[in-house]
Amino acid sequence: MANAQLQSVLDHIDKDFDNSLERLFSLLRIKSISADPAYAGDCKAAAEHLAKDIASLGVATEVRPTAGHPAVVGKVKAGGRPHVIFYGHYDVQPVDPLELWHRPPFEPAVTDHADGRKIIVARGAEDDKGQVMTFVEACRAWKKVTGSLPIDITFLIEGEEEVGSKNFVPFVEANKDEFKADYVLVCDTGMWDPSTPAITTALRGLLYEEVKITAASRDLHSGVFGGTAMNPIRVLTKILGGLFDDDNHITIPGFYDGVKDTPPEILEQWKKLNFTPETFLKPIGLSIPAGEKGRLMVEQASTRPTCDVNGIWGGYIGEGSKTVIPSHASAKVSFRLVQGQDPQKIRKAFRDYVTARIPGDCKVEFGDHSAAPAVALDWNMKPLAAAKRALTEEWGKETVLMGSGASIPIVADFKRALGLDSLLVGFGLDDDNIHSPNEKYDLRSFQKGIRSWARILAALAEVK
Amino acid sequence: MANAQLQSVLDHIDKDFDNSLERLFSLLRIKSISADPAYAGDCKAAAEHLAKDIASLGVATEVRPTAGHPAVVGKVKAGGRPHVIFYGHYDVQPVDPLELWHRPPFEPAVTDHADGRKIIVARGAEDDKGQVMTFVEACRAWKKVTGSLPIDITFLIEGEEEVGSKNFVPFVEANKDEFKADYVLVCDTGMWDPSTPAITTALRGLLYEEVKITAASRDLHSGVFGGTAMNPIRVLTKILGGLFDDDNHITIPGFYDGVKDTPPEILEQWKKLNFTPETFLKPIGLSIPAGEKGRLMVEQASTRPTCDVNGIWGGYIGEGSKTVIPSHASAKVSFRLVQGQDPQKIRKAFRDYVTARIPGDCKVEFGDHSAAPAVALDWNMKPLAAAKRALTEEWGKETVLMGSGASIPIVADFKRALGLDSLLVGFGLDDDNIHSPNEKYDLRSFQKGIRSWARILAALAEVK
Repeated sequence: MANAQLQSVLDHIDKDFDNSLERLFSLLRIKSISADPAYAGDCKAAAEHLAKDIASLGVATEVRPTAGHPAVVGKVKAGGRPHVIFYGHYDVQPVDPLELWHRPPFEPAVTDHADGRKIIVARGAEDDKGQVMTFVEACRAWKKVTGSLPIDITFLIEGEEEVGSKNFVPFVEANKDEFKADYVLVCDTGMWDPSTPAITTALRGLLYEEVKITAASRDLHSGVFGGTAMNPIRVLTKILGGLFDDDNHITIPGFYDGVKDTPPEILEQWKKLNFTPETFLKPIGLSIPAGEKGRLMVEQASTRPTCDVNGIWGGYIGEGSKTVIPSHASAKVSFRLVQGQDPQKIRKAFRDYVTARIPGDCKVEFGDHSAAPAVALDWNMKPLAAAKRALTEEWGKETVLMGSGASIPIVADFKRALGLDSLLVGFGLDDDNIHSPNEKYDLRSFQKGIRSWARILAALAEVK
Repeated sequence: MANAQLQSVLDHIDKDFDNSLERLFSLLRIKSISADPAYAGDCKAAAEHLAKDIASLGVATEVRPTAGHPAVVGKVKAGGRPHVIFYGHYDVQPVDPLELWHRPPFEPAVTDHADGRKIIVARGAEDDKGQVMTFVEACRAWKKVTGSLPIDITFLIEGEEEVGSKNFVPFVEANKDEFKADYVLVCDTGMWDPSTPAITTALRGLLYEEVKITAASRDLHSGVFGGTAMNPIRVLTKILGGLFDDDNHITIPGFYDGVKDTPPEILEQWKKLNFTPETFLKPIGLSIPAGEKGRLMVEQASTRPTCDVNGIWGGYIGEGSKTVIPSHASAKVSFRLVQGQDPQKIRKAFRDYVTARIPGDCKVEFGDHSAAPAVALDWNMKPLAAAKRALTEEWGKETVLMGSGASIPIVADFKRALGLDSLLVGFGLDDDNIHSPNEKYDLRSFQKGIRSWARILAALAEVK
């Protein structure tokens, strides 16, 4: 009977898809750019629009003020069944540079991708309005077909994700008593590839440091001082050049402390994936995985910590030549962190490593840009297995449990503030151009995304 | 009798010094900036002014055209005695930034230095008009007192030194038959310190390379690609960071091939010098010599080859943070070369060293900015010993034979084109601000410089 019910819901989704698309379009037309104060009214309008739409599902919904753009909170609770928080965001990135867009960014349309795929083009088409609406439309279909939602849900949609959720996190903390639930569903991640569904089970953290090494008190002439005066670029390159050993391990003492190996059953699954230099590196002109030897490339990309120098500068960098020994040299260095690594400890280890290598008459200064811990799901979490089965059924292909390099800091905030784990399911693709001109969402991502959530809701209802 | 004659010349120099200063001032007032075509007429005027002045010494002098600014050529030849070419240049550096000058750069004046020294302030006060005039005024005194110059002299004063002598060198080559001589006197170098005279016996050469390493075909997001895609900054810092071993030796294979040790007697002399971290490095905020362990600091600064990264850049270098893995990273790397090192061989060794360390899927491109060999005088050259004695007598302090870090490419050109060695004597000081605002020449450098040349001319007349 449950199966017959689900099939009716899925049929309704397909039958009603044009309306789903029009409802998404009406949300996409609202210019809810959170970074620009000029669009504060549009952000409020997007919140009100979404609140009204969610309320139409029989959910008690309010637009709730925060110190910044408002949040949308909607609750439907029958009791005695699983209770989830659904999280997404209605705000979008700025659209600059506008001249690179092929269409006006807030006039959504379905167009043909160069390779024939049908795509929805607009700012927010994927990130995160399209993704949010996959869940809303799935709920709508359940409500329409069965008269109710299959589980208890608290909708929690914010308007400041693209600017760091700085007012949303305090809002959640201040109201944590009303956000009790079993776990959180987040729809802000991607597929493994266009035909393979994925659940993101690990998000790497990010430690981002800046280093400035100063040698002489002024720039020097290399003819006069070359050979006797220490060059800060020499110090900096020596330190940064020593961060990796010949097996591509990071050499900072203690860096890998607490890092756990990927469970063997996950590794077995990953070994079957077609994630190879040919599929992943060739499109960007590379062929040799740069991570730790002895690790699968998929581990290197997701569950192993990394280090990258994101920027380096010092001395004369214009045209031609100048025989200068600069006074100082700088670098921006970041680390993708995994479960078990404490950003503060890694920061200290990095700074100690650098400081120990500074000559006695040079000095080093550090700046910090970010220190967010990694988030990892419990691989044995029951709803994860249920969602995985549901996705596999919808897409006809085994669901991949994958780590993501990028951070979604709110996931760590939910864990910290509410004590809740998150289940990250999404239908974005690598070529969606999020944060860039010509953002798109595959029409197939949207339609099968709705169907996927419909199946997941059914599956989660069975999880005790 | 020779001594009595010399004393009369020296007395005349002191008596006539105010006139010497006025003659220098009239040359300094001419805006002979060679780099700026707007001042071509001033360059010609400076050449004509100088030719007229040298002709007044009884020297057959002409302004000779080149493909660029003209040269001044004057000849006085009695025969049967030593014959030298005197080289200098009348062109000067641009004066930007003008707002940093304390006085108009072409209105020379004698002012008080902060520490009480009397100084001549003007563009070209030292480099090279002041230095050229020390020699001209010494000749004038000899002519005035004795009716003739003590040796045969060919004056060869160019107008394009500050822009690389690119038309002057072909001029010398095209007319090499008229520039036969025993050796060249060059007045474009400095003292050891304000009270210690010096002869520059080695000029380091310069190899200046640019390196660009490319990894991926575009900039990448470090969250997605961190751990699998090679970062070109990692490759670059590893290579540059490995250029020195723990004893500060340069690790490029073959780099030191052909480099000779400084003669023991020179080392003995240098050991007595007060050239210490306290005197040389402390003023620039450093205390630890950065050159090869086991070498005197004066060797590190002058007779040993060096390597400096003069510039490095890659990735995001603005404010804040960006999680980018850049497509490419670059550096400007230069080497000060000493006698025995072939710039072309060192270039090949450097490029081989870098290329061997480029991962299989990255690529490297090189650019070249300069490749000038070092110049070293024969330490046993007879005129050198004579000039050394003369300088020591004038200054009452042992003359230092020193290497200079900076290159004077014309010295190599004279050797190549004319087969002549050069004797480099000059009276510049480290704080003369050549090429910078507020260029100055100590009044003492000018007066005792003239006296020094008067003595050297007498001494060289005795060298068979």
